[in-house]
Amino acid sequence: MIRVMQLGLGEIGLSTIESVLAQPKHMKLVAAVDVNPSIIGKPLREFMRGRKRGLIPPPIRITGSIKDALKSAGKVDVAIMTTGSRTVDVKATIDALADAGIHVVSSCEELSWPALRAPREAKLIDARAKKSGIAVLGTGVNPGFAMDAFAAACTGVCNNVKAIRVIRSLDASKRRYQLQKKVGAGMTVAAVKALIKKNAIGHVGLAESAAMIAAALGWRLTKLDERFEPVVADHKVSSEHFTVLPGQVRGMRMTAVGTIGKRRVIDLELTMALDADTFDEVIVDSDPAIVVRTKTGFPGDTSTANLLANCARLLGENGLQPGLNTMLDVLKLRSVGV
Amino acid sequence: MIRVMQLGLGEIGLSTIESVLAQPKHMKLVAAVDVNPSIIGKPLREFMRGRKRGLIPPPIRITGSIKDALKSAGKVDVAIMTTGSRTVDVKATIDALADAGIHVVSSCEELSWPALRAPREAKLIDARAKKSGIAVLGTGVNPGFAMDAFAAACTGVCNNVKAIRVIRSLDASKRRYQLQKKVGAGMTVAAVKALIKKNAIGHVGLAESAAMIAAALGWRLTKLDERFEPVVADHKVSSEHFTVLPGQVRGMRMTAVGTIGKRRVIDLELTMALDADTFDEVIVDSDPAIVVRTKTGFPGDTSTANLLANCARLLGENGLQPGLNTMLDVLKLRSVGV
Repeated sequence: MIRVMQLGLGEIGLSTIESVLAQPKHMKLVAAVDVNPSIIGKPLREFMRGRKRGLIPPPIRITGSIKDALKSAGKVDVAIMTTGSRTVDVKATIDALADAGIHVVSSCEELSWPALRAPREAKLIDARAKKSGIAVLGTGVNPGFAMDAFAAACTGVCNNVKAIRVIRSLDASKRRYQLQKKVGAGMTVAAVKALIKKNAIGHVGLAESAAMIAAALGWRLTKLDERFEPVVADHKVSSEHFTVLPGQVRGMRMTAVGTIGKRRVIDLELTMALDADTFDEVIVDSDPAIVVRTKTGFPGDTSTANLLANCARLLGENGLQPGLNTMLDVLKLRSVGV
Repeated sequence: MIRVMQLGLGEIGLSTIESVLAQPKHMKLVAAVDVNPSIIGKPLREFMRGRKRGLIPPPIRITGSIKDALKSAGKVDVAIMTTGSRTVDVKATIDALADAGIHVVSSCEELSWPALRAPREAKLIDARAKKSGIAVLGTGVNPGFAMDAFAAACTGVCNNVKAIRVIRSLDASKRRYQLQKKVGAGMTVAAVKALIKKNAIGHVGLAESAAMIAAALGWRLTKLDERFEPVVADHKVSSEHFTVLPGQVRGMRMTAVGTIGKRRVIDLELTMALDADTFDEVIVDSDPAIVVRTKTGFPGDTSTANLLANCARLLGENGLQPGLNTMLDVLKLRSVGV
């Protein structure tokens, strides 16, 4: 039985707990940690009461630190972190877990491909994890799967990959309030453009996905261009949380384009908007050319929670090497780019 | 540079050589072996002249045994075997390669999930490979990828997998003569049924795929039922090699159904027939439910050749543990079944 600690009790954290609870033959939740003083000490069962899936957590109390959690939890095999999006923000916690001999799987977006924005921290985390004999892994549906590791694995049947295009589109109206807000639903175009300029809106991780694909296929990009733009409503659209009038913003489109000299080799396009279609598509220009379309899409938050739980199980079974891993160590199949 | 030996110079073997030659920065073909006395000693370049892709192999001669190949090839890192379909038939060769310290990737269908039909041989191969510190892997598009390891990896975003269905369909009229013949194109229904009874026709490996999926998701099947049936033409269909009249056989449909008690948990359906649609589809009944459709299909022989080459590269980089691996060690992500 793999003993799991959950760090971070926001929506993704609670969904992840549910994914862990849904695998009772394999994993047992032994600790739940959050820094929010207003919930520390509360019984987790009470805190999770009323959630849709109705899974009942064990009778543990929420603790405010890893140290406190370890006092009551006994042995912990794997910690799942759903806290920061930046590697610098999660490094200290990962270090503490490594020192305690606990494997770590994290939803930190930058950590999905830390070489891109935090190469120095990545090296330090890797060295410390190796010293402790534990594995660290960043994962999530995006970045971490839909637009990078899954796409790379699809190329396993290919040769001579000339270019790869990945399109992810999702109807934000069916997602939680935070996501709808994050993509600018209901705002004016000017307001969204101002936020884009300040890097204060949009999805984190598209550049990480492009960098991961480039590494998988052995491409040394000369340029990686990430862009955000608002998607404007041409008719009235509404969700449970927002009503968007024509001319207002119904979501965002983000693109990451990787080039080698004048060759455009990686094209990622992510649309998150009210009323958008929901699907994932991988198009590989290679011998042979293939198109893989996930008709249902890989549903956002649920997929991330399940990936965290499924990867926690893999780590708990010591299925990865000690050190800082990426999803390319989990899905190891791929072709090479030309 | 990974030094590769190709064993078996039939059509798949030659395609695999081309896939290796298409990755010149990573791999170098240093030996080509076949048991056919009429080609032993011939320059490989001459033997491959006139092939469509026009890739030129190195100036080596075809040898008749591993021993002879090693005399001229120098160090070999990985051997790719495209010879037998049964584990018992390839075991002696794998043993010899293991003793020589050479990693092995094989298209042997049974070896994709050897626990099913050759558990004793699998244990022996595993022990010998571990002793020599080399990795052995069975792969191919089917079994090995489309209907098993890829499908299992798709469940990585899922939880509570209740059932999985995989459909693979391909238009045999675009494939080579041997495949069209193998699926009974142009024969009478009675003749095909007689061959099915004698186990002398059809695809090897659907039961292996079902067993691999069951293992991936932690299901202990109580029954695994594999069936073949002819697909009958209702109008005249023809290919480069066959003309099939109404009432004659245009191909085969093979199914493998895995059940646990009365629950049907695995449903595999493989259609290979003239005039059939070409696609691959994975349907997972889980939280969330997902449908992944490869609109182009994973094209048969090319995909197998590319998988062999791409996995040879992985083995050459010591990317797998010593011992007998399966594609579940290459694609390590999956959910658990309920």
